[in-house]
Amino acid sequence: MRVLSGIQPSGKLHIGNYFGAIAQMLKLQKEHELFAFIANYHALSGGADLKELKQNTFEVAVDFLALGIDPDKTVFWVQSHAKEVLELYWILSRYTPVGLLERAHSYKDKVAKGIAPSHALFSYPVLMAADILLYDAQKVPVGKDQIQHLEMTRDIAIKFNNEHGEIFTIPEAMVEESVAVVPGIDGAKMSKSYGNTIEIFMEEKALQKRCNKIVTDSTPLGEPLDPENCNVYALASLFLDEQGKTELAERYRSGEYGYGHFKKELKELIWDHFAPAREKRAYYLEHPEEVFAILESGAAKARAVAEEKIAIVRDAVGIL
Amino acid sequence: MRVLSGIQPSGKLHIGNYFGAIAQMLKLQKEHELFAFIANYHALSGGADLKELKQNTFEVAVDFLALGIDPDKTVFWVQSHAKEVLELYWILSRYTPVGLLERAHSYKDKVAKGIAPSHALFSYPVLMAADILLYDAQKVPVGKDQIQHLEMTRDIAIKFNNEHGEIFTIPEAMVEESVAVVPGIDGAKMSKSYGNTIEIFMEEKALQKRCNKIVTDSTPLGEPLDPENCNVYALASLFLDEQGKTELAERYRSGEYGYGHFKKELKELIWDHFAPAREKRAYYLEHPEEVFAILESGAAKARAVAEEKIAIVRDAVGIL
Repeated sequence: MRVLSGIQPSGKLHIGNYFGAIAQMLKLQKEHELFAFIANYHALSGGADLKELKQNTFEVAVDFLALGIDPDKTVFWVQSHAKEVLELYWILSRYTPVGLLERAHSYKDKVAKGIAPSHALFSYPVLMAADILLYDAQKVPVGKDQIQHLEMTRDIAIKFNNEHGEIFTIPEAMVEESVAVVPGIDGAKMSKSYGNTIEIFMEEKALQKRCNKIVTDSTPLGEPLDPENCNVYALASLFLDEQGKTELAERYRSGEYGYGHFKKELKELIWDHFAPAREKRAYYLEHPEEVFAILESGAAKARAVAEEKIAIVRDAVGIL
Repeated sequence: MRVLSGIQPSGKLHIGNYFGAIAQMLKLQKEHELFAFIANYHALSGGADLKELKQNTFEVAVDFLALGIDPDKTVFWVQSHAKEVLELYWILSRYTPVGLLERAHSYKDKVAKGIAPSHALFSYPVLMAADILLYDAQKVPVGKDQIQHLEMTRDIAIKFNNEHGEIFTIPEAMVEESVAVVPGIDGAKMSKSYGNTIEIFMEEKALQKRCNKIVTDSTPLGEPLDPENCNVYALASLFLDEQGKTELAERYRSGEYGYGHFKKELKELIWDHFAPAREKRAYYLEHPEEVFAILESGAAKARAVAEEKIAIVRDAVGIL
């Protein structure tokens, strides 16, 4: 089964990303034929400053490679390196009623939040449809906020197929229900927009400082602590097996350790867990030419699929 | 001065096209650096049946070459053969407020006329902006209905330049005031949508039949005719110099000839005028490979300009 997943080049990855989208992607990579691309064209539709976009695109590639995307298993490329997607985007525009786009919740929400109502933001779902349909993706992992966009992709594809025959695979949403909830340092869901993240690849001292800022209750030192209501414990458990969790909970309840101690333990867990990835990352950052070669090889694989599909589509609509 | 002009691949050319857009283009070709492309991507935004699009794209290329577009002087290509335009289209989308597109008269008019309100129709002005800005066109010949779209191109370019520096040439409209008014066979302006055209490359018999259908008054045979109020005369004068016009007017007033006679004269004028073009056209239709070679050579010239510009634009917005 072919699964397509887009990666936002939106800066430093955090632990919430890791136990959410990245873990899911690594699982998909094992079980399916995964197509994963860095959505740098999509970045133009948002409110982000473009000054960092090139660097962010490169770094997110490095980070995903370091964290386990395997370019021998997964087709991994930068969206802008397979330009067929933009031709399909224009062609699909003919099959996309303006009213469909006007009803998109995400557009309205983003405009309400102050993002400029640009044509790129408005037409984002059409580009997303092109991403999916170009590669005949059968399943697309989506967050709940993206289900409507996938419905639009299906509508557009069905409309096109009705006119021109069974050219596009109608994709299905893969809504991940059981994604781990990762608390941020303030206890709310970890999210870049809340400013409560712990970045995966922080320097060791900065990481300890960040862990130290995790909000806890004010149980005095020497008294037993409650692991079930502790953000530090919740974060630490993400890195522990059942035995490790049990042992940690026992130390919490023993009354022998304070939060400062557990914040050090957490930092160690994070630091150790990402040690191999950190090493790979350092290597790639020192050898950008290898990263570009990997991305180009991925783009070549993506283009091979894209060129075949776009040729069929061009022929169907009469583009010479 | 660089002038850019788009050609609609919308079927058979008629005499109104010839004395309007085509004559203007041949004049521009002599006086300026002309970039002329067949707008086959734009065709997707309209209501036309796509079954004919490929053939129409090819035939309009043949017709323009036959009528005098000189590929040694003019950069002449098919829009879809220089795909950089779609990348620029997406990038410009970031700088195009949705409100700007919502205010387009042409979109509202077309929807009012029953053309489906597709995203392609809605965003057509952004693609037009990409066509113009990609090639640093300084002047763009536009009909009065297109002035607003050119204003949008200027707005988008200025917004982009304000953010990224002087990357785009701000184009100016070239509004042709003194285009010859060409009557159709019913006396109204010759236009495909009125069904009153005389096609340039009709068969001889069909051309005579078409000329015979031109509406005239009912002056009986043997009485003098009034050239000033005659559609046949108006059409014939397009092909005549001053002396020819005077002589024809004299024959009108002599009372010796009826309308049937002048309709034959008109057919002869049209037939003779387009004889060299007809010959060239027949040659190209028999040698499509030569036409494709000419178009490919034009596309290579267009791409050379486009690639240079898009590289600058990509760099400005951070597309890796």
